[in-house]
Amino acid sequence: MSAPDTPDDTTSNQTPRVAVLGTGLMGSAIARSLLNNDYPVSVWNRTPGRCDPLRELGARTVTTSTEAIRDNDVIILMVLDYTAARTLLMDAADHLQGKTIANLVTGSAAEAEDLSAWVSGQGADYLDGIIAAYPGDIGKPSTLFYYAGNVAAWSRYKTLLTALAGAATYVGSKPSAANILDAAMTATFHTVSIGAFLEGMSYARSAGVDLSEIKRTLPYWLDLLSQEINVALDSIQADSHTTDQATLETYLVALRTINKAMVGDGERANLLGAAVDNLERAHAAGHGQEALSAQILTAKANT
Amino acid sequence: MSAPDTPDDTTSNQTPRVAVLGTGLMGSAIARSLLNNDYPVSVWNRTPGRCDPLRELGARTVTTSTEAIRDNDVIILMVLDYTAARTLLMDAADHLQGKTIANLVTGSAAEAEDLSAWVSGQGADYLDGIIAAYPGDIGKPSTLFYYAGNVAAWSRYKTLLTALAGAATYVGSKPSAANILDAAMTATFHTVSIGAFLEGMSYARSAGVDLSEIKRTLPYWLDLLSQEINVALDSIQADSHTTDQATLETYLVALRTINKAMVGDGERANLLGAAVDNLERAHAAGHGQEALSAQILTAKANT
Repeated sequence: MSAPDTPDDTTSNQTPRVAVLGTGLMGSAIARSLLNNDYPVSVWNRTPGRCDPLRELGARTVTTSTEAIRDNDVIILMVLDYTAARTLLMDAADHLQGKTIANLVTGSAAEAEDLSAWVSGQGADYLDGIIAAYPGDIGKPSTLFYYAGNVAAWSRYKTLLTALAGAATYVGSKPSAANILDAAMTATFHTVSIGAFLEGMSYARSAGVDLSEIKRTLPYWLDLLSQEINVALDSIQADSHTTDQATLETYLVALRTINKAMVGDGERANLLGAAVDNLERAHAAGHGQEALSAQILTAKANT
Repeated sequence: MSAPDTPDDTTSNQTPRVAVLGTGLMGSAIARSLLNNDYPVSVWNRTPGRCDPLRELGARTVTTSTEAIRDNDVIILMVLDYTAARTLLMDAADHLQGKTIANLVTGSAAEAEDLSAWVSGQGADYLDGIIAAYPGDIGKPSTLFYYAGNVAAWSRYKTLLTALAGAATYVGSKPSAANILDAAMTATFHTVSIGAFLEGMSYARSAGVDLSEIKRTLPYWLDLLSQEINVALDSIQADSHTTDQATLETYLVALRTINKAMVGDGERANLLGAAVDNLERAHAAGHGQEALSAQILTAKANT
């Protein structure tokens, strides 16, 4: 019971009741982590059988998503896409008032903005989150989620949300901010980098190079990349791409040669080819004597 | 003087005399590092004035490249390209017998194989090296060069070569092996990854996301990438791409959405587009339920 002189603490002193809608690999990991932290958890899945292992761990299983939304304070959405998320919320529109929606579905910036506007219109608080981790990382202190949207909801449920990801971070009230960072870092940087590594390994393997040599020196290459990315970010923030090390033109000359050689040896080298295109464009725009980071000046379709 | 019972040690007990041909930013750093390690160094450059600062540090400056080759034991080539390297060596063909050529020029695998064959035919030992570092890193214990080619030359001059790069590594007798690793790791992985980061930042910045948030969480993203690259390499070596985490199809679905959104917002997103193409191809070939690393199975132009 709350003391009579602190009536506003009623909500924050109560343990929030949480619904997890969607209990695939990721949704199940989230529900388990909440149960481990002693939150009362209701789970719902389109295929009800997917909830059985969670019931055994102490979750309440409900038959309809609307019931899950009605009976809980915080609604975590981990369904297929925004269309599915929106459908579940519209079905429960009468029960949204006063709830907090934490939408962890992957989608575009426009989808986040649209859903945020609709949810807010129903009198609910909306947080849009992205998960920069695998299911096995849920609940760890180092795990990163980004959240954007209603700042009051973030403050109110920060303890709960960091139970899922210790490094969870609020990145601003613009509802699409988390999705934009996801697009920039997960989709673009992370996925393209892995793809480029695979193109390189395809070539090295065919050329008869022992991949255990790559394995041994991998920390070196990743450290070099880390240094370069930091330099690039500083250059972007300073809006200055001067360099006293290798110029963009130096890279372009080397990459033209290597791209030709790899294609000649039967590699598709799609990503390397696209990287050459980007450099050619920056070079043609007069940035040849600047650093590699000057590519950002010609990254827009109209440049 | 060598003891009478160890006549073969004559060469290895003498400090080798080194010529550095090409004294641009990188060649000068190499010459300085050798001088710091008390090697007798001759330097030559097409534009002789470029050698003046090195003469002040104790290098011998010579007028012709042939003179430099004739008077030294180890010839380090740091000129523009293989064509320039080959021309210098052909000019001095009469003096190559017994020399060791360490060619650090960037080029294709075929160029390395061709030059190696020609140099060996002149009675000289050939090492083909690549520099995975910036000029400012030359001489540091952690700096990585790869060398391939004549193994006896590597053993004989390992001390000298690790004075330039403490982590210098011999990767095999195939003369192109170092160039192939350079193509895979520097040109492809490193450069494409930086390009992808820049495409992501262009989008994030335009969308009004504060880049200091990226800066703060960068170590997390780089650590995640490191983990994934290691997993991918293990999968390639095991020739098995099964996963219990995110499937290739999961990535493809997300990337299609995000690529469309970024292009819709005015980004060229060239690299992201090429990454989607690669995933589409792997998916069409039936690898949708495997890990991201299964892309390597469709990396060849004929797959």
